[in-house]
This record gives sequence, structure tokens and C-alpha cells, in this order.
Amino acid sequence: MSVSKIAIIGFGTVGSGTVELFYKNKDLIEKRSGRQMDIKWICDLRDFPNSQFKDKFTKNFEDIYNDPEITVAAEMIGGKTLAYEFTKRLLSRGVSVVTSNKELVAYHGAELIKLAKENRCNYFFEASVGGGIPIIRPLHQCLAANRIERIAGILNGTTNYILTKMIFDQVSFEQALADAQRLGYAEQDPTADIDGADACRKLCILGSLAFGKHIYPEYVHCSGIRNITLDDLEYVANAGYAVKLIGLIDKTDKGLVATVCPRLVSVNNPLSGVNDVYNAIMIRGDSVGDALFYGRGAGKQATASAVVADIIDAVKHENADIASLTWEDSSDRSFIVPYKSAEVRVYVRLSSPEADSLKGLITTLFGYVDFIPRKHRTQGELAFITPAIEEYQIDKKLALLSEHADVMRKIRLL
Amino acid sequence: MSVSKIAIIGFGTVGSGTVELFYKNKDLIEKRSGRQMDIKWICDLRDFPNSQFKDKFTKNFEDIYNDPEITVAAEMIGGKTLAYEFTKRLLSRGVSVVTSNKELVAYHGAELIKLAKENRCNYFFEASVGGGIPIIRPLHQCLAANRIERIAGILNGTTNYILTKMIFDQVSFEQALADAQRLGYAEQDPTADIDGADACRKLCILGSLAFGKHIYPEYVHCSGIRNITLDDLEYVANAGYAVKLIGLIDKTDKGLVATVCPRLVSVNNPLSGVNDVYNAIMIRGDSVGDALFYGRGAGKQATASAVVADIIDAVKHENADIASLTWEDSSDRSFIVPYKSAEVRVYVRLSSPEADSLKGLITTLFGYVDFIPRKHRTQGELAFITPAIEEYQIDKKLALLSEHADVMRKIRLL
Repeated sequence: MSVSKIAIIGFGTVGSGTVELFYKNKDLIEKRSGRQMDIKWICDLRDFPNSQFKDKFTKNFEDIYNDPEITVAAEMIGGKTLAYEFTKRLLSRGVSVVTSNKELVAYHGAELIKLAKENRCNYFFEASVGGGIPIIRPLHQCLAANRIERIAGILNGTTNYILTKMIFDQVSFEQALADAQRLGYAEQDPTADIDGADACRKLCILGSLAFGKHIYPEYVHCSGIRNITLDDLEYVANAGYAVKLIGLIDKTDKGLVATVCPRLVSVNNPLSGVNDVYNAIMIRGDSVGDALFYGRGAGKQATASAVVADIIDAVKHENADIASLTWEDSSDRSFIVPYKSAEVRVYVRLSSPEADSLKGLITTLFGYVDFIPRKHRTQGELAFITPAIEEYQIDKKLALLSEHADVMRKIRLL
Repeated sequence: MSVSKIAIIGFGTVGSGTVELFYKNKDLIEKRSGRQMDIKWICDLRDFPNSQFKDKFTKNFEDIYNDPEITVAAEMIGGKTLAYEFTKRLLSRGVSVVTSNKELVAYHGAELIKLAKENRCNYFFEASVGGGIPIIRPLHQCLAANRIERIAGILNGTTNYILTKMIFDQVSFEQALADAQRLGYAEQDPTADIDGADACRKLCILGSLAFGKHIYPEYVHCSGIRNITLDDLEYVANAGYAVKLIGLIDKTDKGLVATVCPRLVSVNNPLSGVNDVYNAIMIRGDSVGDALFYGRGAGKQATASAVVADIIDAVKHENADIASLTWEDSSDRSFIVPYKSAEVRVYVRLSSPEADSLKGLITTLFGYVDFIPRKHRTQGELAFITPAIEEYQIDKKLALLSEHADVMRKIRLL
């Protein structure tokens, strides 16, 4: 039996983890796949003079591109410039590409999948969402008989760590962020994590797969967790909720509603118990009901687990594209409806010298609301949860309310 | 493009759910799979004169067996007599078979998979474990790069419902069982559920897949939940545990330890929050860490979701077996080690007129133990949790202790 030759592009955290895992479990991988395989090239611009794999290194992508033996390449350089160019060239030559690059898939997935199909090879990206958590294949294979009605996920470990830390250690957002940076869970520039862009890219990939149309990141309303305070977390805990950064796509009669934002999650929802750097994704199908997938959403080893699984599948399907992993591209974004046209319940915290006297007005505006008690409630503060109302209407009512009080926070419920 | 013809064998709950789901979402299924398909035969001994599918019915299996158009059959008759014979005959003819029949897979999986491979067709059984929860494919595809270290699952919805009901509604096992029967969650003869045989079969399928050797149900120590009382549930809740019927396979240096029994699960373990009829399976891989899969473990629609997913995959892989889904059969069971040779922590509840005076003896026997408080502790009762000790040793110590007290309960910890 011939040996399938693999190229690794990018030897950073995930790339080196992939190579290490491949050789650690090579016997098992070959036995399970029924194929022999080996890594022939590792492409990186840096020098790794002490690496045990140093005879495989090249700085020149053309060495891989021009090698007819290579049938599968793993792209782990990230971004959408070089990675995009390399991926396109390889797929055009019939070389399958697997990737952990969520940005590239979120922006160019439809095009790259189409290109793979045209050249009878595959573009796989299990590692782009949820790290090592199996989610792409379960969604497109195991749930293939379902009309997907909802995707709700905790898709970013950094923000989940921060929110967990805040409530468990009773510290501010800033302190929790500093702690996450110290532990290496957050970048020095944490913008992409805490403002939701990372979660948004992953949501776009899941949504495109589930609903069959490319959902670009700019189609999704995205807001992060910078403004969440410990006060908010304590109020909502009293009412039986946790706050989580939730990537959510709901299928409605009018179209898809897609958001990434902090949301109150009831303690009865399994997502509320997903803490620290863990990720979890809940998929609601018309037949299966709610299915949840949970695990480490990032990290060298967990992500490598998904990359190697994709490599195995690509090797097994050499010269045969797997038809079902696909979605349509369209500049017509009318299948996405404005998120504020959807009904939603929101948590509101406000302050006013006569906070308690506003309860009547609040009830008149929103109908029945849940006022939330708090052990050490700050004088002049009031927090409540509205019934489900179209969000445009909620904003109008809050504008009226703000004539009498300082509306400090609005957080949606899941 | 030709239309793939499918046969349904058994039109009970899952069988009828499968047919209904197939036609409900046929457009989507064909689009996602890129194939056209139709159900040609439905085989059942009963009459369904009012069924909208009545022109597809036959009582004669030979109609299916002799039809050269049939490429995929879904076996949903259960048991291991007729189902076994039909499956063998179809696979021998090169017809792929998909099934929800956990008993058949647990007892004859290795043989049937081998038969499928020899005849270039497939034997799929996603629906045999966890109902609609994607678990078979995630385990053998997405986690293919991992050495599996542990499988721990809540694999039976009936027992989980009973245990949840007991603690939340403060009722006895008998009352909770009667309630489950009234709601249709438990059979009139609930033996297979409450004594663990059903969970055991599912554990055997997962374990065989994960560890590559056929694990027969008789290799697994199996005890059910009949003896669990509300007293036990209340004691352990005070110590931060829930009791769950856990199917567990641990990989140790000496071999696999395989058990189905009630276990104390810490509230910090996501499995502890899996309530009612829900199932969840946690897989620990050397690379991915802990990954958890959660959802409805049974029910007409959820199970049909998995059966139809298998049908789609079988149609897509006509004339090509998928090599990785396989395990070895062997009558040598030395890879399974006696479960009592493994170290375990146990919860013990005992009664004695001088219970409190036994604390010294207990500490002498076990070393440091956690004595568990309880709000309304019964006079003369004592409950404690031991440190991790080989279970043979624990039993010896409990035998000594039973000279001074009535040892009423021993429940292992996860």
C-alpha cells in the first residue's frame, strides 16, 4: 500500500501540536484509517534548528506546491492573505486542505469548498470551531436529516473564562482579563476575543453549514463583554441566570436572526454550567431536539486532535469530494433579518433617585416584569427582566424610561 | 442520476418515525447528500391498512432480499434472532444495513462489520447508542487521532428519569418507577432498564469502537438502581454529589475496567447536571481531553434522526466500505481486568446503635474518610466516603466493619 504524504503549513502552536500528535499516535491513526501516511514537509518562515523534525522543514511553499506526492496539506498559518492564496493554489491542484483557520473559512469558505469540489478534493475545517470538540461532522453528517432551528454556543474560551472568574472570584472585568492574560488564555491585544469577533467567525461557519447559505461576519450583530459588571452578574444570579457570551442563530418565519452578545442563560439550560475556558454548542434540530457538544474549545492538543482527524478523513477520501459539506454563496443577505425585529426578553438595570417609584411606570411600559432582588442592593438602583417583546419596541420603551432614570445596562436573554 | 432504493424492516416506534422523518425532510436530505433516494419497501408482519405508505408494505422479507434495486436497509425489529438472520443475509448480498438495535450490535457487531467489509457494504449503528445524540461518528472519526482513556456515560434515560424524580420530588424508587411507567418512559417489565442491561449494551458498543476489541456484555460488571433509596440521595447531595447510573470503561495499565453501576458524580462534573430522560456521554482522549455529548437518548423522533443520518451515509458510500468503523473479535477476555482490582472511592451508609462511636474504627480501617452530615440524620446512622483503595480491600474492611454495624449501602464514586 502506498504511503500518503502530508504537508504541514505553519509550525506555531497548533501546527507543532499537530505534528507531535501525529507521530505520538501514528500506529493507532494508521490502524484506524487503514492507510499508511507520513508528514513529508513542514513549511514555516522561522528556523527550528533543534526540532527533531528538522529534515522536513522548508521556508518555500513552492516545495509543497510542486511536490506531486503531496495529497493533503494542513494550513495553520491563520489570517486570510497568505493562507487564502496557498489554500486556493493547493485546492486548484487537487490537493485536499484541512485547516484550523476560522477567519479564512468564515470569509471564504463557500468559495474554497466549491474550488475543492471542482478539483475532486476536500476542504475540511473541524478545528476551526470548538477546538477539539467534534461539531462540524456531527452537524453535517449526524444531523443531516434535521432542519436546524437554532444554534446557540459558547464559542470563545477567553470570554467564558473572564465571566466565570468574575462571578466565582468576585472580581471586576479588568481584573479577570488581566488574570486571563497572565495565564495565556487571552492575547495582549484581547480585542478579537472580548468584543466577540472570534465567536462571530465560528458562528458564521456553523450557521453556513446548518442553513446552507454563507453567513458573513458582517451579517451578524456582534457585541462583547467589556461592559458587563459584577453588579450585573450578581443581580442575574439572584434570578437564576448566568451571563454568557452566546453566539446565536435562530430560524424564524421571516428569516435568520444572528447575534453574538452577552445573554442571560437560565440555570436550567446546560449552557449555564459551562465554565472556565470550556466551550459548548447546542444545536436544535426538528427531529433530534436539543443536542449539546462540550469540551476544550482551544489549546494546542485539543485543536491538534481535530486537525489530525481531518487529515485522516482527507487521506481516506483522496480523489473523492464529500458532497454534503457545502453551502451557497450569495451577496443577497435578505435571508438574515434585522435582529431588533425579533422578540426578546431583556434584563435592565437602571438607577434613579426615586428608583422604587418607577415600578409603576415600568409595569405600564412593559407589562408584567420580574423585578430582581439583590442582597446588598445599591440605593436608587433597580433591575428587572421584561417579557418577550420586539427589540425595537423595547428600545423605544427604554428611551421613554431614560427620561426618568439612568438606564445603565440592557442584556438579552437566551 | 439514479434513485437509491431503501428498505425499512420493522414499523414500530423507531421504524415509523424513520419513515415519517424521511418524507418530511426528503428535499433537504437529498440536497445535503447530493443523491436522490426513496423508500421502496416497508417490512412488518402487522397490517397498517390506513397508513399513507400502504403500497410499500410487505410481510415477506424475501421481497426485500430478492429486490436487486435495494442498496440500503434499515433494521428496526430489535432482538438478535430474526434481526441477526436478516442482517447477515442482506450484508452477504452487499446491501448496507443501518440499525438502532443495540442488542444485536453488542453481541454480534464485530462479525457483522466484518461481513459488511467482505461484501463492500456498510453496517452502521449511530442510533444504537444515545438515540439522536451524535456519538458513534464523533468517536470513530473526529476523535480518531486520540488514544481513548475513559468513557463515562449516562446511557439509559429511564433510570436517569427515576433518579432525577426521586431527588427532586422526594419520592421512593418504587413511586418514581411507577411514574416513569405511567409516562411511557419505562416498560411494564422495566428489568432491562433498571438493572443496567440496556446501558451495558450501549457501553459495550462504545467500548468496542474506542478500544478496538469486542467487549461482550458478560465482560462488564453490571448492577442497577433498585437498591438506591432517597436516604442515599440526600446524604450524597449534602456532600456535593448526585447519584447516576454510569456506564464506565477506564483504561488502566493492567487493562480495561468496565462497569455499569450507580455512582456518585461530583456537582463539578457536567454529568451530574444531566437530568430527566436525557443522556450524556463523556469521552476522554489523550489529546482532546474531556469531550461531552448530550441530548435525548431515546424517543421516536430523536432515534429516527440517527437512523436517517445512517441511511444517508450508507447511500453516499454505496459500494465502498468505510474502513475505520471496525473492531477485533476475540474470545480472550484478558484485556478486561476484574473491576474489584481497581482503586475506587466508595460511599458507605451503615446503621448501628453506637454509630458515632464507630468513627474511630472507620478511620483506622480506611484512613482519612469524609463523614457526611445530613439535616435530619436518622439516629444510629452514619454515612461516609472513603479514599481511593482497591475495591477488594474495601470489601474486606467493610466485612470487618459489618461485625459492628449493619452496612446498608456501598455506592462507588466516579
